Amino acid sequence: MCPDGGEPGERDGDPVEDAVPEAIADKPAELTGEIAALPPEEASKVAAEIRAVAEQRSEDSDAVELIDLQKSGPLPLLTRPEDDDSLTADELRDAWPLLDLDERSDGLRVLPREDAEDFFIALTATDQAALLLHFRPGQRRQWMRLLEPDDVADVIQEAGDENRARLLDLLDAPTRKEVTALLAYAEDEAGGLMSTRYARLRPQMTADEAISYLRRQARDKIETIYYAYVLDPDQHLLGVVSFRDLFAAEPRKVVADIMETNVVRVSDEMDQETVSRIFAEHDLTVVPVVDKDGKMKGIVTVDDIVDVVQEEATEDAQKFGGMEALDMPYLASSRRDMIRKRARWLTILLIGEMLTATALGFFQHALDEVTILALFLPLIISSGGNSGSQASTLVIRAMALGEVRAADWWLVFRREIAIGIVLGLILGVVASIRVMVWGAAGAYHHIHGGEHYMLIGATVAGSLVGCVLWGTLMGSMLPFVLRRVGADPASASAPLVATLVDVSGIIIYFTIAHVILAGVLL
Amino acid sequence: MCPDGGEPGERDGDPVEDAVPEAIADKPAELTGEIAALPPEEASKVAAEIRAVAEQRSEDSDAVELIDLQKSGPLPLLTRPEDDDSLTADELRDAWPLLDLDERSDGLRVLPREDAEDFFIALTATDQAALLLHFRPGQRRQWMRLLEPDDVADVIQEAGDENRARLLDLLDAPTRKEVTALLAYAEDEAGGLMSTRYARLRPQMTADEAISYLRRQARDKIETIYYAYVLDPDQHLLGVVSFRDLFAAEPRKVVADIMETNVVRVSDEMDQETVSRIFAEHDLTVVPVVDKDGKMKGIVTVDDIVDVVQEEATEDAQKFGGMEALDMPYLASSRRDMIRKRARWLTILLIGEMLTATALGFFQHALDEVTILALFLPLIISSGGNSGSQASTLVIRAMALGEVRAADWWLVFRREIAIGIVLGLILGVVASIRVMVWGAAGAYHHIHGGEHYMLIGATVAGSLVGCVLWGTLMGSMLPFVLRRVGADPASASAPLVATLVDVSGIIIYFTIAHVILAGVLL
Repeated sequence: MCPDGGEPGERDGDPVEDAVPEAIADKPAELTGEIAALPPEEASKVAAEIRAVAEQRSEDSDAVELIDLQKSGPLPLLTRPEDDDSLTADELRDAWPLLDLDERSDGLRVLPREDAEDFFIALTATDQAALLLHFRPGQRRQWMRLLEPDDVADVIQEAGDENRARLLDLLDAPTRKEVTALLAYAEDEAGGLMSTRYARLRPQMTADEAISYLRRQARDKIETIYYAYVLDPDQHLLGVVSFRDLFAAEPRKVVADIMETNVVRVSDEMDQETVSRIFAEHDLTVVPVVDKDGKMKGIVTVDDIVDVVQEEATEDAQKFGGMEALDMPYLASSRRDMIRKRARWLTILLIGEMLTATALGFFQHALDEVTILALFLPLIISSGGNSGSQASTLVIRAMALGEVRAADWWLVFRREIAIGIVLGLILGVVASIRVMVWGAAGAYHHIHGGEHYMLIGATVAGSLVGCVLWGTLMGSMLPFVLRRVGADPASASAPLVATLVDVSGIIIYFTIAHVILAGVLL
Repeated sequence: MCPDGGEPGERDGDPVEDAVPEAIADKPAELTGEIAALPPEEASKVAAEIRAVAEQRSEDSDAVELIDLQKSGPLPLLTRPEDDDSLTADELRDAWPLLDLDERSDGLRVLPREDAEDFFIALTATDQAALLLHFRPGQRRQWMRLLEPDDVADVIQEAGDENRARLLDLLDAPTRKEVTALLAYAEDEAGGLMSTRYARLRPQMTADEAISYLRRQARDKIETIYYAYVLDPDQHLLGVVSFRDLFAAEPRKVVADIMETNVVRVSDEMDQETVSRIFAEHDLTVVPVVDKDGKMKGIVTVDDIVDVVQEEATEDAQKFGGMEALDMPYLASSRRDMIRKRARWLTILLIGEMLTATALGFFQHALDEVTILALFLPLIISSGGNSGSQASTLVIRAMALGEVRAADWWLVFRREIAIGIVLGLILGVVASIRVMVWGAAGAYHHIHGGEHYMLIGATVAGSLVGCVLWGTLMGSMLPFVLRRVGADPASASAPLVATLVDVSGIIIYFTIAHVILAGVLL
């Protein structure tokens, strides 16, 4: 959550001014003791085990490229690259997904303390929660206090209600108050993303006063000093001023004259997907969060938005693949969970797919009479499904990016009709050539109806036009329908569209066959 | 590209210190004249037309929510909300995708100048390129100069080789040199994303000297003063120092003692997807770009990474939907382009799907004898396709996020075998119950083979286990295979997996039928 991430010296604990290098002196002093105190022999055993896992996985890792890069620099940049016995953060990161909780916590204990802390801060909330609950009670407090309040709130949400009180107790009183306020927001609202530690100014201050006031605030745990928000006594947001402008301004000018009043802002209850769209539209790095009365509640920074964008893209992709969103990394989710989330949709789709048996039962006499029709059935219904899958992926993604809105359905409909017909004609021509060439070559002469391969070819071509057009329209309109009824458009998954198109495809195919083959075969 | 986006006063042009409000005074003074000089009557006509389009689309727009929010603030925050005749940037943004080039350029001309410039800067490179080529030559220069060098490079790449020289001529000599250097990089490399305008320091400077040196650099068009890079005379990157640390440091301390030397860096030829992964792993807001010799080339800021993440997710989604990546917004791409990109894959899939006809031809005597088998064919092969689509979406997404790597294939394989068997069993049980209930109810008695519905049910159940397992394995392993041969794993699309599974599904189904029905029906 820290936008100055990777920069030590930002988290001020109890400053201990002595011979310790500055970056380490900044860390909370309590973080010593048994955490890093694995006996040397055990430590090198743990390191060796983790390194073995890392090496096996790092075959195509970015870390390798990064290490090569750092070696090319003029300074030795990785921590002790020559000392073979120690573990590096990159190795632990490589091995991480394959380690169990014990190994993970041992891994953190053999890393240099500063690296371990940075590593812990960069973990996902899920991993942090699991580790915190795994640590012995005496150690939890130190690790917990490394985290910013918004990250603590995420961890507590991940840890579940039964652990909430226990984890909240680890915090000092003011932080606990902040975290409790953040926990009132849903995880996917702007309020759930925001940090309450922003820099604030009064409009009447001079630039000079503002700079020294910010200097003082910089010593507290604030998220960024680079944008300061100008508030009235009731916490209403009046404007924003960048540190850079303040710095460049004439020293006696007042903040009210320097600040930008036309501020893009988001509401605390705004959905995180909307927030990320506003970031993209306005090219922001940070946005203020206000409540319904225009009172400032906090800020959301762009680094959290990167996570949101990835998360939403993953959710959409998984829904589109025809399952419930997994909500955690693939390798980290249990088989049981995975089966539950996949089986539900597969079963629903199977039940939908059973309608194909009903539809085929209805046309069963045609199948009996003209067996050759069965040969082209999968080809026709799959093509419908494929064109539907293309159309729905386009519309879902365009909706996610805000390019296509609910009101555009008619526009999309007209486009997709034209496109569907052309695509259907292309596939129809290709497929009927195939049927006729094989037919002329006598491939179908032993099959009921095979002698009328010209008519069968025409049936296949006509059905492809119908099915592709239908698939395209279903695929492109279903996201609009789902959105209208309040569902996620991304649920218009490839498998769902394919299933819907399969049933109608059978009806289209046999209806066209009845028309074309009437009097000849049927 | 500007991480201080939305903050006017960052782009210093020719400062004109007079009665003009500061924000406007900062803009290049040439930007007057005919650009905003649409006659008042024509201007309100254009505004009315665009507003009509915007209103129709904004039904579910975020802008509405934002406007409500801004109205709740203590100050009138939108430009002239009461003056009905004028157009706002939000209205233009709403209407944008539906406007043609003429309307877009008119829209920019009726916006207040400052808004128009911000609007233009926030557009995609594609839109910027189209507009620049559409403007009359006399106006191009002013618009072009609003853009940062890295954005100019993107625009020139979008505008195509035939316009390159013409657009480069619009730049002043130093910018042209910078842009030409950036154009040497591929669009999707770190070098293509970076800005060359970063703040730099020497290691021997004191904190005080560094701050005033940065103050001077802040007047130039640099991307951010908040991180300064410490370079030796040969441009080797020695370290990074945050403005905040500099600010908090004892004034006479030298930069070399304040800077962080363990700097995460990327190479100029690194792929943008890898860069975005490094941003996420290390929670960065900005990263330095170095060449093979460790020399500093530029910086990449997190706001560009948000765009990269969105772009990559869109490309992956479209490939997964079974088509080529569109590379532009849905509503902006021509039908011709769309048909070409969709038809190619659909035709390839159709040709693959033709193998189902071949496979069915092979089992044609079974179909003739036991017509009832045809009824359950779509259901079985679709279930295989659906489970494959789930598995491939999981693996593709996990690969994109770096959670699963090439070396993990064996791990995934073992997981998916277990999951596939369980999923197959679940579906098999559900489907066979359906077949047996319908069979017992006499639904199949008029169909060849319908009297042996218990055996048919067993065949369907067995085939589902086989097809679902096979689909799961195909879906999860195909991304690894594609990656190994150097293709994009996201091409393991739902339609491709479904097509591959269809053919094998037919073979599995009829083979199991032969075994179970041997001596009874076949």
